[in-house]
Amino acid sequence: MSTELTLQSPLDMHLHLRDEEMLKLVAPLTAQTFAGALIMPNLVPPVTTKESALAYKQRINDAKKYSDFEPYVTLFFQEYNYDFLKEIKDDIIGIKLYPAGITTNSEGGVAAIDAEALRPTLEAMSELKIPLCIHGETNGFVMDREKEFVPVYEALAKEFPNLKIIMEHITTKDSVELLDKYDNLHATITLHHLLITLDDVAGGMLQPHLFCKPIAKRYEDRDALLKVALEAHPKVMFGSDSAPHPKHKKECCGCAAGVFTAPIALQVLAELFEEHGKLDNLEKFVSLNAQSVYEFTPVEKTITLIKQDCIVPEIYEGFGENVVPMYAGETLKWSLS
Amino acid sequence: MSTELTLQSPLDMHLHLRDEEMLKLVAPLTAQTFAGALIMPNLVPPVTTKESALAYKQRINDAKKYSDFEPYVTLFFQEYNYDFLKEIKDDIIGIKLYPAGITTNSEGGVAAIDAEALRPTLEAMSELKIPLCIHGETNGFVMDREKEFVPVYEALAKEFPNLKIIMEHITTKDSVELLDKYDNLHATITLHHLLITLDDVAGGMLQPHLFCKPIAKRYEDRDALLKVALEAHPKVMFGSDSAPHPKHKKECCGCAAGVFTAPIALQVLAELFEEHGKLDNLEKFVSLNAQSVYEFTPVEKTITLIKQDCIVPEIYEGFGENVVPMYAGETLKWSLS
Repeated sequence: MSTELTLQSPLDMHLHLRDEEMLKLVAPLTAQTFAGALIMPNLVPPVTTKESALAYKQRINDAKKYSDFEPYVTLFFQEYNYDFLKEIKDDIIGIKLYPAGITTNSEGGVAAIDAEALRPTLEAMSELKIPLCIHGETNGFVMDREKEFVPVYEALAKEFPNLKIIMEHITTKDSVELLDKYDNLHATITLHHLLITLDDVAGGMLQPHLFCKPIAKRYEDRDALLKVALEAHPKVMFGSDSAPHPKHKKECCGCAAGVFTAPIALQVLAELFEEHGKLDNLEKFVSLNAQSVYEFTPVEKTITLIKQDCIVPEIYEGFGENVVPMYAGETLKWSLS
Repeated sequence: MSTELTLQSPLDMHLHLRDEEMLKLVAPLTAQTFAGALIMPNLVPPVTTKESALAYKQRINDAKKYSDFEPYVTLFFQEYNYDFLKEIKDDIIGIKLYPAGITTNSEGGVAAIDAEALRPTLEAMSELKIPLCIHGETNGFVMDREKEFVPVYEALAKEFPNLKIIMEHITTKDSVELLDKYDNLHATITLHHLLITLDDVAGGMLQPHLFCKPIAKRYEDRDALLKVALEAHPKVMFGSDSAPHPKHKKECCGCAAGVFTAPIALQVLAELFEEHGKLDNLEKFVSLNAQSVYEFTPVEKTITLIKQDCIVPEIYEGFGENVVPMYAGETLKWSLS
């Protein structure tokens, strides 16, 4: 007898697919197990026009290999006017705001996040019901960057009460506490931030494949994230932030930030939720919460996992690219059916 | 006209030279610019007998290439009895205590640092005036390990008031504060902990060549270290903790801890002390303080630095080994004459 778990239309609400050959390698690895994903716009150059958004969506659809997967594309935040946003609104799921230089390909982000300076764009988004996704870090000390961003989240939440704001890939208990304080603040949480702390990155040997931005924090932070994920807090959604970099850019001097979890995310989430006796909440965390936050209905897709060991590949290769996944070479307890 | 700086008998009071081919590569890189160095005993197996200490000293002397350099060897802390210590006392400069598993080759260290359990050995050392060098970290969260060790330092300082204790490679303001609290506590400080914080290791791209144990901490910690180093606090000595690992063990998945600074240490210290208008204190920090703490007279050796740019080699190679130095490929403001 085997234990099975079925999930209806799993969604990854924060995903990096990159472009060109890397896109071709990684898109199917998400499309296989998810019904849809919110795709980040930090390409070079970033996605800032209707043409580039639609063209990127087309390239993703060309690469995905599984027709029952829908990419939800986003714009890279800049000042946009009402008419432009009204015209593009139905083609995007949200707009992603990066503080300038805060992570991979974010050089064109916002230099100073000031509610007044951003007011015209944010009011237009608010009126048109376009969600604002934010990478919430200052340029302060690496362990304090997200905590220091809390006042910015609070100012935006208060100034734009009708704007739906998603705190992306939250990593601290401070961010978790904001969820119940402001109606219009929501959050995505990655797989790896539910599992690791800075100890896993730099407490023993240095582990470049676990180096990401925001960096993994303290045990009390991880536990706060785990609590709201396991209880499937209705304002919390799964967003892997799976971020592929080729092996030579991870295992080197000056390693790029990002953990590649796309092909193992559901299996490891099943293990984690089962371990805590919360398997019944997993579908809310990976699908239903996102549907109600973003108010959309995804493609119908049933994913079945079985309780059976599987070994994670050491590396995924193809199209002249390669990427090392989290848990490379290790054994997981759940497999795709 | 060029600016010159002469230093009498510089000393590196915390150095890893490893063994075999790596020893042959790195020993001359310290022996060129230092009159002596305290050599760490964490070989495989560790240095725990008179025979192995003397044999290691001989191998260092065979490899050093500069006759005006004296290696001061140490024993790896275990339970040792009075007679053994009396017999070996003149051949070693101190005994190094590692908590078990805390860093490279420390698996045979002390599992629980309890003053009562260690009393026979520590009382013998106290009586024989053998200094105790300590790697002061718990196995807690990576950013808290040294802070959590403070009570252990305090207990040992109080229980063994005549034992000279060296807090090795201190990285926090908490450790700095202990210096003025207990007569018998002293400290070494590395070059890199005077320069970097966790931001340099993991705040931008991940920098494996700056990954070390203890890990670099916060700005307020670095500033506290800098203050006592620049003022040449009499209980503070330079100890590079220069720790060579071959390039493939630094730029990889599971990178080893250690920064290799031996060949650039004096040049960068000159730059740092000059920048703060404290060049006059440099000789105390890199030589005189150690002489008075350890009560010895080093080989007479005059090192002259000149204010002239030099480029740090990308890598040091030889004997089939290689090692990447801190500031590889970068320009320093002071050169060896």
